[in-house]
Amino acid sequence: MRSLPLSGLSFRDRGVIVCEEANLKRNIDLEEAQELILSRVSPTAETSVTLFESLGRILSRDVPAGIQLPLFDKSPLDGYALRAESTLDASCSKPAKLAVIEEVPAGTVPKKFVCLGTAVKVMTGAPIPTGADVVIKYEDVLRENDFISICKPLRSGDNIIRAGEDVAKGERVAQSGTRITSPLIGLLAALGIAYIPVFNKVKVAILSTGDELMDPSQVIQPGKIFNSNLHNLVAACQEMNVEPLPLGIVPDQRQQTVDILDQAVQLADIVITTGGVSVGDFDLVPEALAEMGSTILFRQVDMKPGSPAMVAEKNGKLIVCLSGNPAAALVTFELIAAPVLRQMMGLRHFMPERVTGRFKGHFDKASPQRRFLRASLLPEFGNIVELTGEQGNGILKSLLNCNALIDVPAGSGPLWDGQEVSVVLLGAGQRVH
Amino acid sequence: MRSLPLSGLSFRDRGVIVCEEANLKRNIDLEEAQELILSRVSPTAETSVTLFESLGRILSRDVPAGIQLPLFDKSPLDGYALRAESTLDASCSKPAKLAVIEEVPAGTVPKKFVCLGTAVKVMTGAPIPTGADVVIKYEDVLRENDFISICKPLRSGDNIIRAGEDVAKGERVAQSGTRITSPLIGLLAALGIAYIPVFNKVKVAILSTGDELMDPSQVIQPGKIFNSNLHNLVAACQEMNVEPLPLGIVPDQRQQTVDILDQAVQLADIVITTGGVSVGDFDLVPEALAEMGSTILFRQVDMKPGSPAMVAEKNGKLIVCLSGNPAAALVTFELIAAPVLRQMMGLRHFMPERVTGRFKGHFDKASPQRRFLRASLLPEFGNIVELTGEQGNGILKSLLNCNALIDVPAGSGPLWDGQEVSVVLLGAGQRVH
Repeated sequence: MRSLPLSGLSFRDRGVIVCEEANLKRNIDLEEAQELILSRVSPTAETSVTLFESLGRILSRDVPAGIQLPLFDKSPLDGYALRAESTLDASCSKPAKLAVIEEVPAGTVPKKFVCLGTAVKVMTGAPIPTGADVVIKYEDVLRENDFISICKPLRSGDNIIRAGEDVAKGERVAQSGTRITSPLIGLLAALGIAYIPVFNKVKVAILSTGDELMDPSQVIQPGKIFNSNLHNLVAACQEMNVEPLPLGIVPDQRQQTVDILDQAVQLADIVITTGGVSVGDFDLVPEALAEMGSTILFRQVDMKPGSPAMVAEKNGKLIVCLSGNPAAALVTFELIAAPVLRQMMGLRHFMPERVTGRFKGHFDKASPQRRFLRASLLPEFGNIVELTGEQGNGILKSLLNCNALIDVPAGSGPLWDGQEVSVVLLGAGQRVH
Repeated sequence: MRSLPLSGLSFRDRGVIVCEEANLKRNIDLEEAQELILSRVSPTAETSVTLFESLGRILSRDVPAGIQLPLFDKSPLDGYALRAESTLDASCSKPAKLAVIEEVPAGTVPKKFVCLGTAVKVMTGAPIPTGADVVIKYEDVLRENDFISICKPLRSGDNIIRAGEDVAKGERVAQSGTRITSPLIGLLAALGIAYIPVFNKVKVAILSTGDELMDPSQVIQPGKIFNSNLHNLVAACQEMNVEPLPLGIVPDQRQQTVDILDQAVQLADIVITTGGVSVGDFDLVPEALAEMGSTILFRQVDMKPGSPAMVAEKNGKLIVCLSGNPAAALVTFELIAAPVLRQMMGLRHFMPERVTGRFKGHFDKASPQRRFLRASLLPEFGNIVELTGEQGNGILKSLLNCNALIDVPAGSGPLWDGQEVSVVLLGAGQRVH
């Protein structure tokens, strides 16, 4: 761990009394930051939901099949169930003639036993009657009154869907920590599992600090800007299927910040803030965090954008404080907050996925500090990765088609066309686990 | 168009009076089926929603920027704004000394004009005062009382974020027919767009027919099975962000089927049914469709699984009837219903995306009929495509990790390892448009 001093004014310079921890971690590596906070969270409590409510939720238990699928031997088609033996020497000139002793629509149970010389009419999906070992299609028999004629020998076992051929009883069909998708919902329904054990939805309080911010619904005032972070982060939480609690904009006022942070910790499982963490913001958020008695786990991460990020803890809940700069807020949300959210959701795979990409285009700046570039990965073209636009901290447009971040190590020169780069996949770009 | 006769019993054989259209299309190609129905739907009406409600909705208009971004020239850091000219001959031995005439926190407007020999203290994000053309960091000046000293000449334009460098006023930031994502929500918020023009959510009534079906919440009876289709399709609709109206299970009873279909057409924008379309189901759904006065657009599609699919129209609304077989229902939902839903949603790209894949593994069956195989495409490995498991019509498990369908043309032999195949991407496998 490096411990570069914070540049600019420090807490003490400004006359504020802060119980700064002796071992407060500053300007740490991203990986150390991730580890520090991931070790402090665990999945939310278990609950259960109906199938209709289960999409996107995370299974809190392994799910074993309580029944086999199919539940019984059944017919894949409309036809006649019989014993193959009954057709042993059948031919067109000397067809086998069988008595039809019963009709079994799907959803009913055959009552009669099929012995030599008899057949039972079955609909698609109907159970195979006891004694029968083969089904023949309607179209392949000649029916006259209560008899059918068959022109060729049949092979025992043909046209029978075997009980358990899809899922064996007791088989684990889904693993705890899996995100529930529509086909899994279909499978759970087929198994008669109507109430699904899942982790509670993670509640995320989100707030933005800054006197310069106005809500997009307001009329803009001179010198002010519209707050995009709150809306962007709320939607990013919705995309992950965590429950955002938007707490709005807090003015640059210490007591108000303390009050709303205290309230946020009570209301939610985790708190995310934007703004108020860089030097020029008068250290507003760090001061508020100290005043409310939280423990600061680290301050500043050695990366660009987003280096002012810090995380504190109060009552076992994390307060993740991101830079107010939109691009920085989003990059650190993805790299610092999202893994924690995924672990709290109970997902088995919570770290962002990484692939090796081939850089297309050029990026002329050197990177004395580790840098994450907004990019678009095209896996169908051999993991080509392109920048999505300008990389300035304030640029929002290049977030639009960004599904990946290029991780440029500290000390790198400009990137050249064709260079191999390490790529972190974001949100929708990630495989569903 | 081919028009093979339907095998098995026809409407008339069963003594039912049906206003069958002379030109009813039967056993048509998938592409013809898609075209027939896509030409009959259009996007739903326009509405508007708040930013918080907008995730996943489809923009109903192009969105121009009403303001530029940033709205004004601003400082990217905490420092002093001045004229570069004031530092022309500055050096460590002979620093330029400037009077600090004002402080501008972010969110306030500078009042003073910066002339030679003066500077204004600015916070990150603060507007650049008139007259100033460069910003220098706090850390790079020596401040004494109301004066700062600078040791080197500065370059005009440095450390200023230019108004409009992200988005120009009037620039189209998003196109009608685009799905709204979290970064777009951030951008719209930054532009002060609080109410977003979107298409209404498409309402999809979904019902399953079949006496053999029980809801997963019930206790299973002999010969019955749990209904998975309703739950799978409801979740598939939720995944697409259309609004499912689950209407439950309808018994194999013509009048009840007519009544619920009539109700469904009134309640929803489109109706999807499963079951009751194959021969063995007594043609229940086709009869009900005829009795309710709907026009059958086609019946049977030349593909496997899912060939019994049919589509009718009543009062300008489509009734899409899929096989009751789970795998068939899902494949035809993706290939026939989903494109229609996406067009009704207003999405610009509504057809399933196709790529060329390289088949890995083996599939030993020949395909006399066109066949869609449940598969998993791995774009990161050069579009390798593997089967997800057994391909039987009743198999649910192989739908679990299925993100693609291999489109095997009619008349194909077994598939060999390494063979080039045409692949249709499904749901989450598709790029977000």
